[in-house]
Formats: sequence, C-alpha cells, structure tokens
Amino acid sequence: MGRIDRSGYLQSVEDALRKYVPEVSLMQSGLFRAMRYSLLAGGKRIRPVLVLEFCGLCGGDQEAALPFACAVEMIHTYSLIHDDLPCMDDDGLRRGKPSNHVVFGEAQALLAGDALLTMAFETMLSPESVKGVGAERAADAAGILAKAAGAYGMAGGQAIDLMSEGKKVSEETLQKMDECKTGALIRAAAKMGCALAGADSGQIRAADEYAAAIGFAFQIVDDILDVEGDAGALGKPVGSDKDNAKSTYVSLLGLENAKRAVEKLTETAAAALEPFGDDAAYLKGFARKLASRNY
Amino acid sequence: MGRIDRSGYLQSVEDALRKYVPEVSLMQSGLFRAMRYSLLAGGKRIRPVLVLEFCGLCGGDQEAALPFACAVEMIHTYSLIHDDLPCMDDDGLRRGKPSNHVVFGEAQALLAGDALLTMAFETMLSPESVKGVGAERAADAAGILAKAAGAYGMAGGQAIDLMSEGKKVSEETLQKMDECKTGALIRAAAKMGCALAGADSGQIRAADEYAAAIGFAFQIVDDILDVEGDAGALGKPVGSDKDNAKSTYVSLLGLENAKRAVEKLTETAAAALEPFGDDAAYLKGFARKLASRNY
Repeated sequence: MGRIDRSGYLQSVEDALRKYVPEVSLMQSGLFRAMRYSLLAGGKRIRPVLVLEFCGLCGGDQEAALPFACAVEMIHTYSLIHDDLPCMDDDGLRRGKPSNHVVFGEAQALLAGDALLTMAFETMLSPESVKGVGAERAADAAGILAKAAGAYGMAGGQAIDLMSEGKKVSEETLQKMDECKTGALIRAAAKMGCALAGADSGQIRAADEYAAAIGFAFQIVDDILDVEGDAGALGKPVGSDKDNAKSTYVSLLGLENAKRAVEKLTETAAAALEPFGDDAAYLKGFARKLASRNY
Repeated sequence: MGRIDRSGYLQSVEDALRKYVPEVSLMQSGLFRAMRYSLLAGGKRIRPVLVLEFCGLCGGDQEAALPFACAVEMIHTYSLIHDDLPCMDDDGLRRGKPSNHVVFGEAQALLAGDALLTMAFETMLSPESVKGVGAERAADAAGILAKAAGAYGMAGGQAIDLMSEGKKVSEETLQKMDECKTGALIRAAAKMGCALAGADSGQIRAADEYAAAIGFAFQIVDDILDVEGDAGALGKPVGSDKDNAKSTYVSLLGLENAKRAVEKLTETAAAALEPFGDDAAYLKGFARKLASRNY
C-alpha cells in the first residue's frame, strides 16, 4: 500500500511523467520530444494533486493512483497545445515559453497533442496500472476522465468557446462554457481519486462539490489576473487589449463582485469537505492558495 | 449472449455509431455535427468487422463487443480528420466529399478529431460497456487500442511520415511507418476481438498474424490503386503527380512485384488462421476481398 507524503506529490508526479513519456531512440523520437516539451514545462499540477489527495483521503493506494494522476495532466497538456494552435487561439507563448507549435511546427504540435491524449489512456490502462488498482477501479477512473475530456466535457467547452468567439455572452453561457472547458477536468480529477480508492457515494459527492467550486473560482481568478496583470505588470489601462471583445467574469460582474465570488466559492469548497473532517485541512489550504494566487 | 449475424455487421456498426455520437441539442451541437459528418460518411468499416468476427470466432458476446468495435472506427475517423488538415496533408476531399475542415472550418475539425478520439474511450469505458464484457476484458481491450493508436503506434507512424515528407525512403522505413500508421490499428482490432472473448494466447497470436498480413497488403494495394487509378481513371501517365516525390511500394518494388507481395500476404493471412479451422472461411474471404478491391 503505497502512501505518498504530501510534500512529495509534485516530485512523484514529475518523475512519473518522465517515466511515462520517456526520451526514446525510435524513428518518432521527435514526437516524444514535442510531447515532453509541453508536459514537463512546469505547471501547477493541480489535477494530479487532487487525484492523489482524494485517493489518500479515501484510504486508497496513492502509488497505484500515480498513472491516473499523470493521465489527467497529459490531457490538460494536450488541450493547451491544441488550444495554442494558429487555427485556435494562435498563441505564441505558454507559461513564458514559446508554444509547442512555435518550436516544433504545427503538424508535430498537432500530433504531440493527439499522442498525449492517447498516452493518458495508454498509461491508465497498461497491464501494470490496471493490476495496481484492479480492473474495476481502473475502468471506472479512466471512464470518468474520458467523459470529462470529451464532447460533453472539455472538448465540448472548447466548441462552445469557438462559437462565442468575439461575442459578448451572458454570465450563464460563460459559466456553462467554463464548467465544460475547465471545471469538468478538475472535477474528474477529484472523482478519480475517490474512485481509485473505492470511495462511497457521499465521499464522491463531496469531492465533486469541492472541485466544482475551486474550478469555478480558478476561472474567475484567471479573469481577475488578466485584468490586474495587464493593468499592473504591463502598465496598460484595464480592458485595453483585444480580450475586451470577450465577456469575462470581471466584465460581467465587475472586479469587486468577482473577488467576492472567489471568496464565497472558496468557502463553499471548504464546507463541502465536511465528510472528511480534520483530514480535509490540506485541501482547504489548497483551495485558499489557488484563490489567492497571483500567477 | 448476443450473437450478430455476419450479414448484419455493417448495419449494427452504423446503428451503434449513430447511438454513441447522437445529434444533440446542446450548445456544442456543432461539434457533434462535425463528428457525425466524418464518422457516418461510409467507409469500409474493416476494423469494426475484425473486432466482431474475432470476438465471435473466440466465442465472445458480439453485442457486448459493439462499443469496442465502434471505438476503433472513431479512432480511425479522427486520424483521417486530423490527417486532412492544412498543416498535415492539406487534403480537401475525403471519400469523395469535402474534408471535415472544408465544411466546418479548421478549428471545429481539430476539435471533432479530438472529441472522436476521446469518445472512443468514453464509449468503451462507459458503465454499460464495462458491465457488458466485464472490467478485466474492457480494460484489456481499451488498453490494446490506446497503445496501438498512440505515440508507439498510429500517432508515431504519422510522426515518421512527417519526418520523411518529400523524401525517398527505404523499403524498411516505409514498412515501419505503415506498420505504425495503418498496421497497428488493424492488428489492435483483431486482438481486441480476441481479448473481449477471453481468447487464449494461441488465438491472439493467430489473429495478430492475420491482421498484420492484411494490414500490410492493404497498404500495398493502396499504392497500386494510386498508380493504376491515376493512370486509368484520370488518364495521367503513371507517376506524373506530386506523390512521385514520395516512396511507395510500387516505386520501390515495381508494380508486378507489389502485386505478388499482396498475393503472398493474403496467403500468409489465410495460413495464420489455421487454429480456427473451418470457422475461418469468412476471414479468408475478407482478406481476399480486401486484396482485390478497386477502391
């Protein structure tokens, strides 16, 4: 029964990601380089941490949950690579580095995204991973992730985003889009952690509620940072850039109300963890840290 | 225990594909339309037929194998959509119809491919599908497909293709590329059918050998049809088009040797089926039909 110390989450995830997407001396070694470039570019690893922590809280084997934690990060990374492509957001920078397609070309970046998405399932469904948690739980967790990432979840959210490009949208549309685009994967991570530990339905519901709240708060903080980052770091007046054409929580709610919404959601998240008692302190702190982040 | 009549394979697959990717009245209904446009555009459904037939030969429940048969077709379809994109082959026609991105735009086509790839796993790992074959076999079959579709399989083959674009390559490189690009998915289909039926290792080996042979033959026939189709249907002299820059089995082996190779591979495929005895007649005919196809 492999426990992972909380202070070791990030290192365990990094090591496992490097193992699952290794440097290879195959004819397609360039593809693996492109996959690793984005997968190992840092990032907050929020989703893998949620898998590991909920798995631990529900008494599961965290070592055995690692492939599943990494799978969520692979899917998150693929979505960023495809999102940055010229036909999508056409973004040349990601996490302060040139985007995948800027370095490797559009075709290789497309394939790197495809291959990371596929590698997520390859990693979860390898004989070793399945043996580690048992076939029932492996299929359950992989199924949760597939549903959250697909046409009813993240990919669906991207399609809604595409549809509303350059348009002012209602708060309801914006929320629905973000629930799919960002929320679904964060909720999946929390539920997968529970599923991998064979949690009961009350625990799963609590995890889902927590993750939905922090996922929503995360998105609002993103919008706040866009505004304050632009105004602060770059010295531009608020709302001077091209994103102004797009509705955000800040443009819809106003800056102060947006900040209050984040506070309220962070409280909701903490309250949802009630079934876990004192063990939930780490996740409460995690929610607060995400809410007060400045990057 | 659901058996499907061989004459009903294609209709069962069509019906199931329509069920798994329905018309929806969601905000992302356009995404579903784009997915259906390519998924339901005909095609020979070779891979689903292999899943169903090998499942049946090994005594499995073919009705329960349908989601897995459809999953392989979803992955095949996603690969065609992404392959046709401007940054890849930039192909405006597919199966005589405008390519996905020509109809829906590049961004939606990218997402439709992503969503079909994800839907493959969503379909195989739904609670209903998992219950139908049992978690062990579901995880096994989905794992076989993930491995075949990913960086070591189909996506890897695309990357090799990318690397050798416009170059003359050796027969060895060409074969390695096709083994990944085309062969891996066809072999996966055959092995999945066996896995879903709980086949023994001898049966799996036989299925794999058969599928490897017909997959290779399929690719050589493609090259032959490219040459004979160009020369015949379009009245162009053999080798007059842009593909001439690319090595093919015809350019490497010569037309007659390429045809002999197809014959030999079709015999190899038939011989591989020996463990299945008289029951293998259908698959022997299937291999011959693929070898003598003119489309």
